Amino acid sequence: MSLIYLLDLSAVAVCAITATLEAHRRELDLFGVWVIAIISGIGGGTVRDILLGRLPVYWVHDPVYVMVGIVAGTLTFFLGRRLSLPKNFFLIPDALGLALFTVIGTSVALKLGTPWLIASLMGVITGVFGGVIRDILCNEVPLILRTDIYATASLAGALLFIALESLGMTHNASMLLAMSSIVIIRLAAIRWHIHLPRLGAEA
Amino acid sequence: MSLIYLLDLSAVAVCAITATLEAHRRELDLFGVWVIAIISGIGGGTVRDILLGRLPVYWVHDPVYVMVGIVAGTLTFFLGRRLSLPKNFFLIPDALGLALFTVIGTSVALKLGTPWLIASLMGVITGVFGGVIRDILCNEVPLILRTDIYATASLAGALLFIALESLGMTHNASMLLAMSSIVIIRLAAIRWHIHLPRLGAEA
Amino acid sequence: MSLIYLLDLSAVAVCAITATLEAHRRELDLFGVWVIAIISGIGGGTVRDILLGRLPVYWVHDPVYVMVGIVAGTLTFFLGRRLSLPKNFFLIPDALGLALFTVIGTSVALKLGTPWLIASLMGVITGVFGGVIRDILCNEVPLILRTDIYATASLAGALLFIALESLGMTHNASMLLAMSSIVIIRLAAIRWHIHLPRLGAEA
Repeated sequence: MSLIYLLDLSAVAVCAITATLEAHRRELDLFGVWVIAIISGIGGGTVRDILLGRLPVYWVHDPVYVMVGIVAGTLTFFLGRRLSLPKNFFLIPDALGLALFTVIGTSVALKLGTPWLIASLMGVITGVFGGVIRDILCNEVPLILRTDIYATASLAGALLFIALESLGMTHNASMLLAMSSIVIIRLAAIRWHIHLPRLGAEA
Repeated sequence: MSLIYLLDLSAVAVCAITATLEAHRRELDLFGVWVIAIISGIGGGTVRDILLGRLPVYWVHDPVYVMVGIVAGTLTFFLGRRLSLPKNFFLIPDALGLALFTVIGTSVALKLGTPWLIASLMGVITGVFGGVIRDILCNEVPLILRTDIYATASLAGALLFIALESLGMTHNASMLLAMSSIVIIRLAAIRWHIHLPRLGAEA
Repeated sequence: MSLIYLLDLSAVAVCAITATLEAHRRELDLFGVWVIAIISGIGGGTVRDILLGRLPVYWVHDPVYVMVGIVAGTLTFFLGRRLSLPKNFFLIPDALGLALFTVIGTSVALKLGTPWLIASLMGVITGVFGGVIRDILCNEVPLILRTDIYATASLAGALLFIALESLGMTHNASMLLAMSSIVIIRLAAIRWHIHLPRLGAEA
């Protein structure tokens, strides 16, 4: 379980870093950066825990999650101006984070005995809701409502994970396969500009 | 109780359909439509359950609610472009949904022994908060903060329901009378452009 | 404890009044004012209680909080147009409210045995989240993400309170000192335009 924990913390850090970089467009002070970094990193799991009634939420008795968000946000705040990272530098870590959060969230819900549809929803919420709350705070329409295959990759992976588990595959193999599928779908969608049908488009 | 359940699911469907139709103005993809449809249908009861500590929230162990939201949103997404419904087609179902959600929410809170003021508040939250969260996600000032008698009809009905129950009227009769009053107030307000005093207006 | 209770209610009233005054810029009707007034007054403690799992949230079984919000909002709604208060009239009550909410929130979390970092976070959430939700509803980027030392004063006071308590100072003395430090930092920041380093600024 220790590997999952380390990966989980890494995903929190990646979310905090990308959120801080994106926040560069806005005039946030250091405290605002902390808020955005922490919420992006732990917001999804927080909403999942509240809906499922797993209270207090997971980071209340393990402050390492909040610390990772603060440290990652602060370092990015001061270093982010100097470094000029290539635009796509975080695409792969970001897809990995989405994959990990989704599979962990789905797994948590399944263990509590929730029906598969709800468990997959909890996986998606864990994967994307940190970004949703961040966008609401920054007064933007959340990305997942208007962009290409992001939440959809998360949903596909959550459903695959549930199918593999129910077919009797081992937990670790199911996780690995589901996570790989999320990363592949996400990167393929970016590479070939795949998207779902849209409202408002001429169809 | 089976009739209430069917009515409740119908109200979820109506909320999902109207939310999808309203979302036509925005460039949402199919996944975004699901998010908006589900949240509009079950958001109010979710906030109520969290505040009251009825966790996990009501739809976690009954996935039919989420399914109804997804199906209603998907059908509207694909059919909504072809049909051109009259503008006021959903005014009455919408008022019925508001009435039903309000009375159910108030009733749930009363059964938990909350004071009448809080129970009426929970009724209003159940009735209107799905729309509030939908508007926040779509980056608009929530309708209830700026429009005519909508939440006010919900509040009046919740208070009437509590008064009738405390006067010893049967549960079903109280529900029916309170719901009727909400529908009548709501439709009358639309018909005769009644509204509360406003800030900023020349008074 | 009765003094704390009265102070707490006063802080709710101050939040409701300032929120209603600020809402004057927008076309809210009376119901919208109630929503804004109540949420500004009790939103922070509500989010804290949900995260910590103290459910139902604190105002469900004590409707006096909601009543204070409604009465303060209504009076301000009708009197606010006539009175022209000096612009800075509420700066000191507002700073006192921030101080009180912060220290109460931190104290509540400490009593539940949460780690100090999380307890200070709960203090800040109690102090500032009512305003955050109000700003989200009004479709503005929350003030704490873009303005001078507000949440930072709250955080500094929360940390001082925890330090003093752990050094063995009495509860009342710790509260008083921490609250004073929040008020002083807040007013000093306003007086001398102190702020944290900002993203996007030429540095």
